[in-house]
Amino acid sequence: MQNIKITVAYDGAAFHGWQFQPGDLQTIQGTLQEALRKITQERIMIHGASRTDAGVHAFGQVAHFKTHSNLPALDLKRAMNALMPPTVRVVDASETGQDFHSRWMAQAKTYRYRIHRARVLSPFDYGRVLHYPWELNEDAMNEAARLFEGEHDFTSFAASTGSEEDDKDRDMMRVIYSSEVTRDPAACEIAYVVRGKSFLRYMVRKIVGTLLEVGKGKLTPADIPRLFDARDRSLSGPTVQPQGLYLMSLEYPDPTNSWATFKAQRPRPPR
Amino acid sequence: MQNIKITVAYDGAAFHGWQFQPGDLQTIQGTLQEALRKITQERIMIHGASRTDAGVHAFGQVAHFKTHSNLPALDLKRAMNALMPPTVRVVDASETGQDFHSRWMAQAKTYRYRIHRARVLSPFDYGRVLHYPWELNEDAMNEAARLFEGEHDFTSFAASTGSEEDDKDRDMMRVIYSSEVTRDPAACEIAYVVRGKSFLRYMVRKIVGTLLEVGKGKLTPADIPRLFDARDRSLSGPTVQPQGLYLMSLEYPDPTNSWATFKAQRPRPPR
Repeated sequence: MQNIKITVAYDGAAFHGWQFQPGDLQTIQGTLQEALRKITQERIMIHGASRTDAGVHAFGQVAHFKTHSNLPALDLKRAMNALMPPTVRVVDASETGQDFHSRWMAQAKTYRYRIHRARVLSPFDYGRVLHYPWELNEDAMNEAARLFEGEHDFTSFAASTGSEEDDKDRDMMRVIYSSEVTRDPAACEIAYVVRGKSFLRYMVRKIVGTLLEVGKGKLTPADIPRLFDARDRSLSGPTVQPQGLYLMSLEYPDPTNSWATFKAQRPRPPR
Repeated sequence: MQNIKITVAYDGAAFHGWQFQPGDLQTIQGTLQEALRKITQERIMIHGASRTDAGVHAFGQVAHFKTHSNLPALDLKRAMNALMPPTVRVVDASETGQDFHSRWMAQAKTYRYRIHRARVLSPFDYGRVLHYPWELNEDAMNEAARLFEGEHDFTSFAASTGSEEDDKDRDMMRVIYSSEVTRDPAACEIAYVVRGKSFLRYMVRKIVGTLLEVGKGKLTPADIPRLFDARDRSLSGPTVQPQGLYLMSLEYPDPTNSWATFKAQRPRPPR
């Protein structure tokens, strides 16, 4: 039995999110599994490090699956790419240790959210960025972004479960290693780049919505600590559109196949 | 009566080329004209500098149209962008002299053809580049590209009219100001960039097909002068796919509204 680790890139606009859904809805997990079924004649379950929502893109999603096939990882990669639509690509595949798990062993994830600032949005960026051509205080946004670093209760920056009871029971503490607003004036673009241990659903998009409120002057950086304390998602900014969010990369302990190494190498939050 | 000059960007994958076609086929000219009809209540004819083929993209197509509307150019631009799909954008609009003609007064056009060299094509580049991950002698390609500069008979690098009689009658002489293969190793990409007075149909794509044959070693730079002499399109490389070709920019005399200035400022071919 081989355990195969794959790195996957996809254009989220073409799919109804990562997670397999019964019926005709195209999902990334479903597309990968269908290609593997044709190649191996097995029913294979793929585990992804992050269940990205509909519209969210990825450059470096990581997933793993077990197979009885003896095909080398490189051949599996080629065969999968030959069978799948060009909107999803296996960019890397390798055999890994039996106990490697893409989700449970991830030490850090990096997301990037692109905000395009030009007056007219290029037809080539449509569906791939949030277009916001109006004035923004980008310095204040970066100042606020920095305040998300460290360990915090992210209740104010998460999706509601729809049930108050459930919300109370969930562990809303999350650790963010770095959080900043970067600028690329040549491309007329700013981006929010965040690296953390793990994220709550909609968390990155709700942080970006809040940073935009800071950029507009409706909130200030000083409001961020207050929002953490309030634990009330109605006080933070809105959840921005998914078409702007990119799962950039996953980080694993080295060697990735050992739980002992994983525990020993776990990064600590800043400060 | 205003004469309005517009600069247009579009994702060619979404359209059946520039030129209006009756029926349901989406064309760029048709989409622009339909938006103007709604805004002005006039039936407006838009003249484009280049009738790009289906699948060909543009960053800087230039077009002009006459209207009885008194709306300032900036308002026309905004209204057009509000009414059109995001795959076509008016990036610039200005009132221009009455005798400005986007096609007849163009002094130079620049095209770019993108060839992606990575083993796996990013889902975000699909439909926007030619993917060629195999070996290519890029130095030989650039050496060959340079030989297209100057004034030549491009019969070997043009579409057939389908009629030998017509082919004989056409003027196949064209002037190329610059022609080169550029490299962007960081992006794993090479591009053919060509600037000339005007181009025959399929000419850029047939030149790129020929340069690829040079890159593969099936032709050499020394074959290019022979291909010009042969005036036989069956001897040059194939016409490559349109999804890789970008109309980058148009150049006009300054001021653009005078035919006299246009004639005086016409650039001369190199050597």
